Amino acid sequence: MKSIKTISFIGSGNVATQLATALFSKQFLIHQIYSKSIENATVLAEKVNADATSNISELNNKADIYIVSVTDDAIEQVLQQFTHKEKLIVHTSGTVEMDIFKTNGFVAYGIFYPLQTLSKTSPVDFTTIPFCIEAVSPTVFETLNQTAAQLSNRVYSINSIQRKHLHVAAVFACNFTNEMYQIASKICADNNLDFDILKPLILETANKILIKSPKEAQTGPAKRKDFKTIEKHIKLLENDIKTQELYTLITQHIINSTQN
Amino acid sequence: MKSIKTISFIGSGNVATQLATALFSKQFLIHQIYSKSIENATVLAEKVNADATSNISELNNKADIYIVSVTDDAIEQVLQQFTHKEKLIVHTSGTVEMDIFKTNGFVAYGIFYPLQTLSKTSPVDFTTIPFCIEAVSPTVFETLNQTAAQLSNRVYSINSIQRKHLHVAAVFACNFTNEMYQIASKICADNNLDFDILKPLILETANKILIKSPKEAQTGPAKRKDFKTIEKHIKLLENDIKTQELYTLITQHIINSTQN
Repeated sequence: MKSIKTISFIGSGNVATQLATALFSKQFLIHQIYSKSIENATVLAEKVNADATSNISELNNKADIYIVSVTDDAIEQVLQQFTHKEKLIVHTSGTVEMDIFKTNGFVAYGIFYPLQTLSKTSPVDFTTIPFCIEAVSPTVFETLNQTAAQLSNRVYSINSIQRKHLHVAAVFACNFTNEMYQIASKICADNNLDFDILKPLILETANKILIKSPKEAQTGPAKRKDFKTIEKHIKLLENDIKTQELYTLITQHIINSTQN
Repeated sequence: MKSIKTISFIGSGNVATQLATALFSKQFLIHQIYSKSIENATVLAEKVNADATSNISELNNKADIYIVSVTDDAIEQVLQQFTHKEKLIVHTSGTVEMDIFKTNGFVAYGIFYPLQTLSKTSPVDFTTIPFCIEAVSPTVFETLNQTAAQLSNRVYSINSIQRKHLHVAAVFACNFTNEMYQIASKICADNNLDFDILKPLILETANKILIKSPKEAQTGPAKRKDFKTIEKHIKLLENDIKTQELYTLITQHIINSTQN
């Protein structure tokens, strides 16, 4: 299989935007951008010198690869509508199985999943972002591997089952972690405290796991089984039942996971 | 009040160890270290050129300040036993009220609370660690402020009520965040995945909140209300009911906190 030069995107969300921009900066040609919203397609297309369309049948067969980067629920539908079944195609989802391509009539396909929290606007350094690759054949794998290696020095071979679990793990490590920050930030706001006070702690907590396992790194009242403090905290949260419930459950989880 | 030169520690745990070591490196004299375990007292005393004792009545009155750094539950007892009621004394707890000194007969007291996750062994750069200071009087406040300023360029005036809430916020931002890492790490181990894959994501998630609020920074299935993915994840966690329950509750919390 020849190496990738020309790329079209199906989707123009956070992942598509960051990926297209990064690939464009590495001298790939971005050919067409499809989105059901022509406005969104156009915003991205202008950034990467591509053509925009909101009509999937206008996607031509001139790209070497088609990167599907739409919400998980929408993947099936765009695969049904996309008619160039002979072309190399991948999606960037952490959860959708690779077999979805086969059941929609494709023959050359794979997964091209950048494991990172991507927003449309924040600039991203892809160099250290892990790419999780899976492919229908060794030839396709090698092509995807080469493409990912142009962006990142961390390319992993991850099968569909592993990828699903990895995605759950990523939800804990990223989205749920961010919700802990959100709760901390709200407690600060409610008590006239500058959230900045907590930022060194947040950074240190993240940096610690580069050298220690999370289990070794754990500190605090739950780890110490300091039930007096835990009870005080639960009482302090009595005006926010949902957060209080979370406090109790995570505390219990820490007690269970650090006792072995 | 004269500025601090000589310091004795009541306690030899993580916070005492890091604080004594940092103060020692800033040319403070560390005079005595008390711990109920003479082994622990000795380990720290040897690091900071101090005397060790496991008998609290052996603490003499030659220090300018006594830093109480024992578990919250033990503070009351050591304060009862410590007889030099006229001396300047502080504790380093995030939760125990300052009034505990008054009820135990002290006159010059305050709080000297470094807001960080401290282990005995990992080296710590105190420069960016926030110190939360509270004091019985403006004079004591100024003394504590000057001492903290030798270690850190982030010294905050935080009253006892604020400090309690700040401590709960810190538990979410640090201990609970670390538990999210722990869960992610366990999911990786269970599925033959290298936890290293998630580390760039963890760092990016922490670094993001330096420039965005946690609410703005949030991504993922709960934020997108992608219930199909959420259900898949819940099913994947069916062998670990406690973690599954956490997943559901935090997802619901994100949906509530991002919808406004």
